[in-house]
Amino acid sequence: MSQEEHPAGEPQASARQEARAEPAETEQYRDKVMKTLRVKLPDRPGSFARVATAIGETGALLGDIVRVQVSTHFVVRDVMVYVNDAEHLEEVVGAVRALEGVQVLEVRDEVLSAHRGGKIRVTSTVPVRTVTELRIIYTPGVAQVAQLLQEEPEKLRDYTAVGNTVAIVTNGTAVLGLGNVGVRAALPVMEGKAALLDAMVGVGCMPILVDSRSPQEVVRVVQRIATGFGMILLEDIAAPACFEVEESLRQSLDIPVFHDDQHGTAVVVVAALINALKMTERNKEGLGVLVSGAGAAGMAIARKLLYFGVQDVVVCDRAGALYQGRRGRMTRYKADLAAVTNPKNLRGPIAEVIRGRDVFIGVSTAHLVTEEMVRRMAPDPIVFALANPVPEIEVKAALAAGAAVAADGRTINNALGFPGITRGALDARARVINEAMELAAAEALAEQTPAGGLVPEFLNREVHRAVAAKVAEAARYSGAAPPF
Amino acid sequence: MSQEEHPAGEPQASARQEARAEPAETEQYRDKVMKTLRVKLPDRPGSFARVATAIGETGALLGDIVRVQVSTHFVVRDVMVYVNDAEHLEEVVGAVRALEGVQVLEVRDEVLSAHRGGKIRVTSTVPVRTVTELRIIYTPGVAQVAQLLQEEPEKLRDYTAVGNTVAIVTNGTAVLGLGNVGVRAALPVMEGKAALLDAMVGVGCMPILVDSRSPQEVVRVVQRIATGFGMILLEDIAAPACFEVEESLRQSLDIPVFHDDQHGTAVVVVAALINALKMTERNKEGLGVLVSGAGAAGMAIARKLLYFGVQDVVVCDRAGALYQGRRGRMTRYKADLAAVTNPKNLRGPIAEVIRGRDVFIGVSTAHLVTEEMVRRMAPDPIVFALANPVPEIEVKAALAAGAAVAADGRTINNALGFPGITRGALDARARVINEAMELAAAEALAEQTPAGGLVPEFLNREVHRAVAAKVAEAARYSGAAPPF
Repeated sequence: MSQEEHPAGEPQASARQEARAEPAETEQYRDKVMKTLRVKLPDRPGSFARVATAIGETGALLGDIVRVQVSTHFVVRDVMVYVNDAEHLEEVVGAVRALEGVQVLEVRDEVLSAHRGGKIRVTSTVPVRTVTELRIIYTPGVAQVAQLLQEEPEKLRDYTAVGNTVAIVTNGTAVLGLGNVGVRAALPVMEGKAALLDAMVGVGCMPILVDSRSPQEVVRVVQRIATGFGMILLEDIAAPACFEVEESLRQSLDIPVFHDDQHGTAVVVVAALINALKMTERNKEGLGVLVSGAGAAGMAIARKLLYFGVQDVVVCDRAGALYQGRRGRMTRYKADLAAVTNPKNLRGPIAEVIRGRDVFIGVSTAHLVTEEMVRRMAPDPIVFALANPVPEIEVKAALAAGAAVAADGRTINNALGFPGITRGALDARARVINEAMELAAAEALAEQTPAGGLVPEFLNREVHRAVAAKVAEAARYSGAAPPF
Repeated sequence: MSQEEHPAGEPQASARQEARAEPAETEQYRDKVMKTLRVKLPDRPGSFARVATAIGETGALLGDIVRVQVSTHFVVRDVMVYVNDAEHLEEVVGAVRALEGVQVLEVRDEVLSAHRGGKIRVTSTVPVRTVTELRIIYTPGVAQVAQLLQEEPEKLRDYTAVGNTVAIVTNGTAVLGLGNVGVRAALPVMEGKAALLDAMVGVGCMPILVDSRSPQEVVRVVQRIATGFGMILLEDIAAPACFEVEESLRQSLDIPVFHDDQHGTAVVVVAALINALKMTERNKEGLGVLVSGAGAAGMAIARKLLYFGVQDVVVCDRAGALYQGRRGRMTRYKADLAAVTNPKNLRGPIAEVIRGRDVFIGVSTAHLVTEEMVRRMAPDPIVFALANPVPEIEVKAALAAGAAVAADGRTINNALGFPGITRGALDARARVINEAMELAAAEALAEQTPAGGLVPEFLNREVHRAVAAKVAEAARYSGAAPPF
C-alpha cells in the first residue's frame, strides 16, 4: 500500500448518529507502540481491576488481555498495552510493579516476535511418504505430466499450482508511509499480504522483489517470469512508475495484473460510497464528488466513480482542481484524467472547489480540510478522509461541522478488496481484471456490510467468498474469462 | 534433472553377492505405464489370489494394493498395475472382469490425478483470526518491521521468510529426457522438487520459470529478484548455458547458487563410490576412474572425484578420452577439465580407455558399454551405469561380466543430495556452496547408508537431517558461512 493508504483494522461505524457511541480509536492509537506485559497477580476478584487502573492512570491504552497460566492462588496474564515511547513504557511497568502482590514477569514486543522467521512458506500439497507416492509426484511419474504439458500447454492450470499462485511484485519505491526504502524493507509488507491471501481465500502468493527503480526493468523481469503465475499483484511501486508498469504488463501478459494501491482502494471507496448514499438517501445521479489527491489511489478512485455512474467528479492536487488545459503540475496521466472529469470546468484551490460538493474523498495529506470547508459543502455531506496515518480532517471534527457521514482509513479499510478480487479472478481463469469485475466487487462489499456500516468486517471469510463469486461471474459475462 | 540423470526410486543393492536376490526392477518397469483398477470382489480367502493370477497371466506387474471399502460380503480394492500400453490395459481389465463375482468399478490414472491442481502452495505461517493478529502481521504492526529492515537490512533473514525460501530456476531447455520443451512442461518437475524439499527438510521452494533461452537473460532476471530468496537452485538448464548461468550468478550473488544436475548428482556418485570402495576393499589412492559423458553431470562428477582425492580420472565423450591439446569436439569447459584430468594422457575411444580401469561411471548413453568392455577393466571392477532411463550397461550384464559392484540410476538416486545440502546451507546462512560442503554431504550420505548398500533411502528424513548438519558444519569451518 502506498503512503496515501490505510491500515487494516476493525470496522468503525461513523454515521453521525453513531459517532458518540464509538471510540475515536484513530486518534487514540495513533503513534502508539504496542508492548506486552506478562503479569503474575493474585486470582481474586478485583485483582486485575487494580492492574487496569494503574495502567489507565499512566495514560496507556489496554489491548487484549489473555490468561496464560491459572493456579490455585495466582493467575498469569499477558496484558497488551499501547504506550507513547520507551519512557512511557517504563512508567507503566513501574506502576504495575508498585501494586502489592503483583509481579511483572516479562515485557515483550509481540509485533517483532510475530514476524520472526517470516510469515509465509511454500508447502507441499501432496503426500510424500511411500515409494509409490515418490514415484508418482517425482520421477518417473512426473515425466508423464511434463509430456502432457509439452503437447497441450493450455492444460498448465490443470496440472500445476499456477492457477492458484499469485506473484506480489514490488520494487520497494513506495512502502507504507516510509517511501522509497527498497525491496528489503518492503518484504514484510508483501509477506503480510501473502499471509492474508492464504488465510482469507486460500490463494498462494509469492513476494517477488524486483531490485530496480526502472519501470522498464520491472516490466521486463515480470514478463520473463509471468508464466509461473496465475496473476500479478503490483504493490508499493511509486507513481507515476506504477502506471507505466501496470499499463505495459496489462498489454503484454494474458493473466490479470492488478495494482491494489490503485484499484483495490478504489473498489473499497465505491463500496463505502454506495452505503453512504443509502444512509443519506441520495442517488448517484446528480452527485457532486471531490477527490483530493491525484496519486495512484486518487486517480483510480476518480475513474471508478465515473464507471460507477457519478457524472460530476472533480480531482484536486496541490495546485487545485484538475481541468482540461491546465498548465502547472501536469503529467500525461493527469491530462488524461482532466479530459474525462470536472464537467463544470471548476478551477481554483480545494477550499473553493469543495463548495457545494456532496462528497469529499481524500487520499492526500493530513489536516488539509478544515471544519469551515466542510460547512461549505452541500447539506448533509459525506466525508471520507483517508490520508494515512493522519486524515485530511478528523472524523469527529467533520461530524461537528455537519457531515452526515464521516470516516477515515481505519473504517474504509483498503485491504478489503484484494482477497475476493484475486480469488474471483483466479476461479474464473480471467485474463484481465476489468471495470465490470471491480464494480461487482464494490457492490458485493456494499451488500455484505452490516446495517448502519460503511464496509464489512475484514476477518469475515464469508465477505471475501461473496466478493469472489460476484467477481468471477462478472469476469464471465464481461468476456474477461471463458464462459463455463 | 537433465536427461543424463535419474529417477528417484527405492534403493536397490547391487553388490555381486546380492544380485540374484534383488528384483531387476529397472528393466521390468521400464517404459511401463501405471494405472489403478478399482475392483470389487468377494471377501473370501483366495479371492484376491484369483485377481492377482489373472493380472499376472497378462504379463502386467502389480504395484500397491489397498483396500478402500470392506463390507460383510465383499471388499473393494485399488489395484495398481503396470502395463505396456492402452491395449495391454484393456487385456488386463478384460481378464479381471472375466472372473466370477469380480467387478471392475473404475480404471484411473493416478499419476495425472496426483498432479491435478499442482503440488505446492504458498501458505501463511501466522494466525489471522483476531483483530489484534491482523494488526500485528499487517498494518499498522508491519510498519515497525519494515522500518527496522530499512535501518538494519542485515536483519532480513530474521524477520522475513527469506532464510527458508529457495528459488528453483529453470528455462525449460533440458527437462528430464524430453529436452528443450519449454518452461510450462518443466513446471511439474520444479513443483515436484519443491514438494520434496518441503516434505524432506521443511524448506520452502518457489519455481521461477524464466521464459528465455538466453543465458544472459536468465542471469539478469535472477540477479534482479534474488534478494527475495535465501538460495538459488538451478534446474533443467541445458549445457553449456548452465555453466555460464551458474558461473555468472555465483560471481554476482551473495547467496548460494546450486545446479543440482551437476553438483547434486556428483555428490551422490561420490557417496556411492565411498561405499563401493569399502565393499571391494579399495583405497582412493591409485584408483583409476573412467567417467563417460562430458555434459553437466559428467564434468561435475570428474571434478568432485579430484576434490575427493582420486588422482587418475579420465573423462570420455563421443570423441573418446579428453586430453590436453585435443582438437575435435572441444569447448572451453572441456579444455579446462582436460587440463586437470587424464594424468597418463590416455587417448582413444572408450572401448580402449576402459582397459584396466577400476571404476566406470556413466552419465552418457544407453548400451554404450558391452560385457566385453567390462572384462577389460581391472579385476573386481565397479560399474555405475547411470544413463537414464536406459543405462550404459544393464546391471545384470555388468555383474555377469565380472563387476564386483554394479548399479544404475535407480540405485544411485541423484535426488538424494539436494535436500540436505539446501537445508544445511540455509541453516548456516552460507553465502556459497563450496567443495568442502559438497564433500561433507557425500561423506554423510555414505555414512547413512545401511550395511551392504551404496546409498541410503531417500524417504528417510534422518538421512537428510544428517547431511544438513554436516553441510552446515563444513560451511562454517570452510568460511562459506559466518562462525556461530
